[in-house]
Amino acid sequence: MAREKKVETVAAPATTPAARSGRRATSYDVARIAGVSQSMVSRCFAPGGSIAPAKRDHILKIASELGYRPNALAQGLISGRTNMVAVLISSLTNRYYPEVLDELSRRLTERDIRVLLFSLNAESEVDAVLDQVWRHSVDGVISAARLSDGQIRLFDEHHVPLVLYNRTARAASAASVCCDSTTGERDLVERLLNAGHRRFAIIAGPDDSYVGEERRVAALARLAEAGIDDVPVVRGDFSYDSGRAGMHDLARKTGRIPDALICVSDQMAIGAMDAARIDLGIAIPKDLSIVGFDGSGPAGWASYALTSIRQPVRRMTEAAVAMLMERIEDGTTPAERRLFAGELLGGGSARIGS
Amino acid sequence: MAREKKVETVAAPATTPAARSGRRATSYDVARIAGVSQSMVSRCFAPGGSIAPAKRDHILKIASELGYRPNALAQGLISGRTNMVAVLISSLTNRYYPEVLDELSRRLTERDIRVLLFSLNAESEVDAVLDQVWRHSVDGVISAARLSDGQIRLFDEHHVPLVLYNRTARAASAASVCCDSTTGERDLVERLLNAGHRRFAIIAGPDDSYVGEERRVAALARLAEAGIDDVPVVRGDFSYDSGRAGMHDLARKTGRIPDALICVSDQMAIGAMDAARIDLGIAIPKDLSIVGFDGSGPAGWASYALTSIRQPVRRMTEAAVAMLMERIEDGTTPAERRLFAGELLGGGSARIGS
Repeated sequence: MAREKKVETVAAPATTPAARSGRRATSYDVARIAGVSQSMVSRCFAPGGSIAPAKRDHILKIASELGYRPNALAQGLISGRTNMVAVLISSLTNRYYPEVLDELSRRLTERDIRVLLFSLNAESEVDAVLDQVWRHSVDGVISAARLSDGQIRLFDEHHVPLVLYNRTARAASAASVCCDSTTGERDLVERLLNAGHRRFAIIAGPDDSYVGEERRVAALARLAEAGIDDVPVVRGDFSYDSGRAGMHDLARKTGRIPDALICVSDQMAIGAMDAARIDLGIAIPKDLSIVGFDGSGPAGWASYALTSIRQPVRRMTEAAVAMLMERIEDGTTPAERRLFAGELLGGGSARIGS
Repeated sequence: MAREKKVETVAAPATTPAARSGRRATSYDVARIAGVSQSMVSRCFAPGGSIAPAKRDHILKIASELGYRPNALAQGLISGRTNMVAVLISSLTNRYYPEVLDELSRRLTERDIRVLLFSLNAESEVDAVLDQVWRHSVDGVISAARLSDGQIRLFDEHHVPLVLYNRTARAASAASVCCDSTTGERDLVERLLNAGHRRFAIIAGPDDSYVGEERRVAALARLAEAGIDDVPVVRGDFSYDSGRAGMHDLARKTGRIPDALICVSDQMAIGAMDAARIDLGIAIPKDLSIVGFDGSGPAGWASYALTSIRQPVRRMTEAAVAMLMERIEDGTTPAERRLFAGELLGGGSARIGS
C-alpha cells in the first residue's frame, strides 16, 4: 500500500496550463468527499485490490461524479506494465501497405493495449527512436522497420520483448513473423515457366530490404534451376514511380522487352504495367507477363488485375501480436520464426497455367 | 525534490517477468555505485536540475555504464507532461490516405513527442477509445476520426486539448484544420460547366461524413446556380468498390450515362473510372468526364490520371500539430478553424478548360 500511496500524487503542478484552466480530480479528492483514506481509493481501482463491496460502490459513485479516473501512468508504475506496445513502421511500409498497421493496431486495441507509433522515414532515425522506446517503458515492440543485428541485441539488454514483422534477424535471435516469400516467388516463376516464358527480367527492391532480397534471390534460384541465367535485374524502392522507371530502364538497357517481368512488390508491378502499356505500347499479358507480390488493395483494381501473391495480413498480424504477448508474459520464451504461406492471386496480368 | 524522490521508485516488483529475466537499473543503483544520494541522481536528469558539472559527469558516466535511463513515466509524473499525443484515425482514412498519419507522426516526432495511435474501425468504438485517452494522460489529441459534439465537449471537461483534422464540430467549439472542400468542389464544377457539361451525377460519401457532405452540398449548390437541379446522387463509403458499384447504380437507375460524374473522393472516382471504361465500355473523358477529390497517390497513376483537387497534406498536418502545441502550452487558447485551399490536379479524366 505504501507504494501505491507514493505514486498516486499525479495532479499537475500549479504552474501548468492544466492547473490554470482547472485540474483533473485526484484520488485525494475522491477520498476526501467519500470520507475514506486515499489508500482505500487506490485499492478500489487496483486490479484485485481487496475492499468491501458496499465501500467499493460508494467510492466508485463519488469517483464517477467527480470525473476521477485512475491515472494509467501511475498504474503502470504500480504494476510494472504500461499496457503500451511500440509499433515501428517505415513510412513506405505504411504508405504502400497500410493494412498492416491497421490490423496490428486493431488487434492490440482488442487486448486493451495502446499503440505507441514510431514512423521512421530514414534508417538514420532508428537509434533515436530506440532511445525513446527504452525511455517510454513500453511492454514490448513490434517492428516492421529494419533493425540491425546490433539494434536487435539492445532489446535483450533492455529486457524489452521484440517481434519482427516481415523481416528476420541475420545473426541475432529474435521472434519473427513472415510471409513465405521464397515459396511464393518460386511458385510464380514455376507457373511462368510452365506457360512457356523464357526471357525474364526482375525489378527488385533496395539491397537492404529483407523481403525484397528474399524474393529476388528465390526467383533467380528457380530460374537457374531451369537453366535460365541471363536475367537482367534493376532495383526500385517499392514505389509506383520506381516500378515505372524500372520498366523504362530495362527496355533501354537490354534493348529488348522480356516476355516475363517479375516485380518484388505490387506497387512496382503497377508502375511497370503503366510504363509498358501506356508509355511503351506493350500488350499485357499478350506480349509481356507481369507479376507482383503482396496482394495489396490496388492489385485487385480492374485496370491492373495483377497476378500476385497475397500475404495473409490478418493471420500474420494476429500471430505477431500473440507472439509478443507470450514474450511479455514470460521474458524467457525462446526465439521463434513463424512463416505463413501466401495465396496466389490469379489476376490477368500474366499468362500462367490455371 | 521531495516530489522527485517519491516517483523515482520505478523498478518492477519482484513478481513481474522483467524481474525474473533481470531488471533495469534504477536511480538507486546509480546512486549506490556513484556514491551519491538518489535525489542527486534525479537532479542530474531533471531538466534544469542544479548540480556541479564534475558531479554530473561522474553520475552520467556511471548511469551510462549501468544502462540507466530516467523513466519517462516517472518524468511525466514530475513535469505534468507525458510528451504523448493521441492520434485518432479511422481505418478507412488510413487505408485510403495514409500520408496523413505519416505526416502527423513525423511532425510530432520532430518535436520529441510520441504518438499514441488509436485506429477506429467503427463509430461505436469511440467511447471506449476516449476512456483510454483520459486514462493515458496524453498532452493532447488530434482526431481525424468522427467525434460527436458531446464527445468533443468531454475534451473540455477533461482539460485535454483537441484539434480536429478535416472535420469541424457543428455545435461544440473546437480547433480544426480542414481543406476547403467547398471552394475546391465549386471550382471543379465551374470548370466542368465552362467546358459544356450539362448532365451531371454525383457519387457522394456516407451521410455522416463531414468532408463528404461538404463536397456534395457544394457541388449541388453550384449546379443549382447554373440552373441544373436534376442531379442523381448515389452514396458510397469512400472505397474503390463503392465507387465502382456507384457507377453501375447510376447507369441502371437513370437509364442514361451523365456527361460529368463528380465523385467526392479519389478512391471512388478510380472505382467509377474502372466501371465506366472496363465494365460499361464508356470512353473517358470523351463520353464521360470524371472528377475526384483528395489528390492521393493513385490519382496520379498513369492508368487513371485523375482530374482532382489535391489537399495540401503537409501544410495541413503542420498546422494541426502547431495548433495542438499552442493549446498544450496554453489551455485557454480559443477555438480556431484553419481552412487550406486545395490545388487543382489537371489530370486527364475530365474535359475541363485550362
